[in-house]
Amino acid sequence: MNQEHLDLAITAAKAGAVELLSRWENRTVSEKAPKDLVTDADLASQKAIRKILMEGYDGYAFVGEEEGENDPPAAVRSGDADAPPCWVVDPLDGTVNYVHRLQSFAVSIGLYHAGKMRLGVILDPVSNELFSAVDGAGAHLNGRPIRASDCEDLSQALVACSFPAGVKGDSPEVTRFVKVLERCRSLRRLGSCALNMCYVAAGRLDGYWATNVCPWDSAAGTVIAREAGAQLTAYDGSELDDWLPKFCVTATKPMHETMVGLLGSD
Amino acid sequence: MNQEHLDLAITAAKAGAVELLSRWENRTVSEKAPKDLVTDADLASQKAIRKILMEGYDGYAFVGEEEGENDPPAAVRSGDADAPPCWVVDPLDGTVNYVHRLQSFAVSIGLYHAGKMRLGVILDPVSNELFSAVDGAGAHLNGRPIRASDCEDLSQALVACSFPAGVKGDSPEVTRFVKVLERCRSLRRLGSCALNMCYVAAGRLDGYWATNVCPWDSAAGTVIAREAGAQLTAYDGSELDDWLPKFCVTATKPMHETMVGLLGSD
Repeated sequence: MNQEHLDLAITAAKAGAVELLSRWENRTVSEKAPKDLVTDADLASQKAIRKILMEGYDGYAFVGEEEGENDPPAAVRSGDADAPPCWVVDPLDGTVNYVHRLQSFAVSIGLYHAGKMRLGVILDPVSNELFSAVDGAGAHLNGRPIRASDCEDLSQALVACSFPAGVKGDSPEVTRFVKVLERCRSLRRLGSCALNMCYVAAGRLDGYWATNVCPWDSAAGTVIAREAGAQLTAYDGSELDDWLPKFCVTATKPMHETMVGLLGSD
Repeated sequence: MNQEHLDLAITAAKAGAVELLSRWENRTVSEKAPKDLVTDADLASQKAIRKILMEGYDGYAFVGEEEGENDPPAAVRSGDADAPPCWVVDPLDGTVNYVHRLQSFAVSIGLYHAGKMRLGVILDPVSNELFSAVDGAGAHLNGRPIRASDCEDLSQALVACSFPAGVKGDSPEVTRFVKVLERCRSLRRLGSCALNMCYVAAGRLDGYWATNVCPWDSAAGTVIAREAGAQLTAYDGSELDDWLPKFCVTATKPMHETMVGLLGSD
């Protein structure tokens, strides 16, 4: 992965963001069909992104949020060194926020190769914040280096989580939420997996976990968080599977031990 | 309350925001003492706001977040028509976000007179969104009129809530959280009472409740939400006490009935 890949991903993310913003501001037009609107915005953003990425590197694989593109080729998934690199794209992360015209949604583009996510670009079109990272080269926000915080103590930590609405009070999601709520400084639900990971990378959040997201929600974020020095594993402390992302990301090792200790014990 | 009051409150809010922003960007300097930093920012913002408001209208009462200014004079609180108008100021709403450099904090200035909150100004210095309302004259965002959404069904609603971290799993706060979580489209915890109320007013959220906030957190927001057509009562459906704000605000009457029905039944 090199500067050329990064430049292309940034160009593609900006093209996706243009599609999202143009529909976001006119959202009142189709207020009665928010799901249609989202589908339109999703589709337009993914189409714009896909075109730019595919024209840039012929033969790369592509995984996205759309039906029919959800799964990577078997050779990609199994981490074969000679499998093609695979773009992993969420054209609109934070769907519900977007539909309701609440800030905090993003375009997310990751690049996976030989068993690892190696590049990540996440663009928040409303705040104009562009987070990016390439494996081994650090993480950046609008070109400036970012680092995770030095928070080691959950009681001083600002933490976020993602889980679906509609879960029941006795579900493991609520049990985990309460366990962390009882111990942290404050617990946010902001509604965008990609941005939550960026915020851990930038030191705004000290931890974040999600157990119900898709590979395209977390792909770019994993690279950005790791390159910013954050700790990232499955939510129970085991190794993260990029294609089954049930994960916990934290600022420091002590924070991580505390968090996975709470989240992993059912 | 007239345009002059509004202009003065806006001037004061902007002066407070300058103090917050100047300290927010240099936050890394005193990372080891985040509580001191907040106190500094709070103090500087409140001082700047207080000076402008007090110079503008001699003899008005003042309630703010700072020690010694928490309570309104008895005549103000009891709603006497000849009691002086009372500014109700939160110089920094969304404290924890601010300390962690997460977006979503605000300056909030309300004006109470003769038993009612009558003017509200809330400024988000990061997004540069200025929400304002005067009793009977509608609510505005950066000068453009705003309205609450037309959402009538909790299952299609984006809702937010505020309650303190550290509460236990069997607390009423968690019970209420779970009740709404089970029924709504999605449930946010964004960390700023003032902005949550503005977001209901602007149609970005369809409902919000809080049971642990202070009068200065909600003062301006109550006017902005009401003037945008939102429904506002105590969280159990009874009349709201502006000085003991345990409230629920929603976009529409049907939404309100559903929400207070869930929140008020322990």
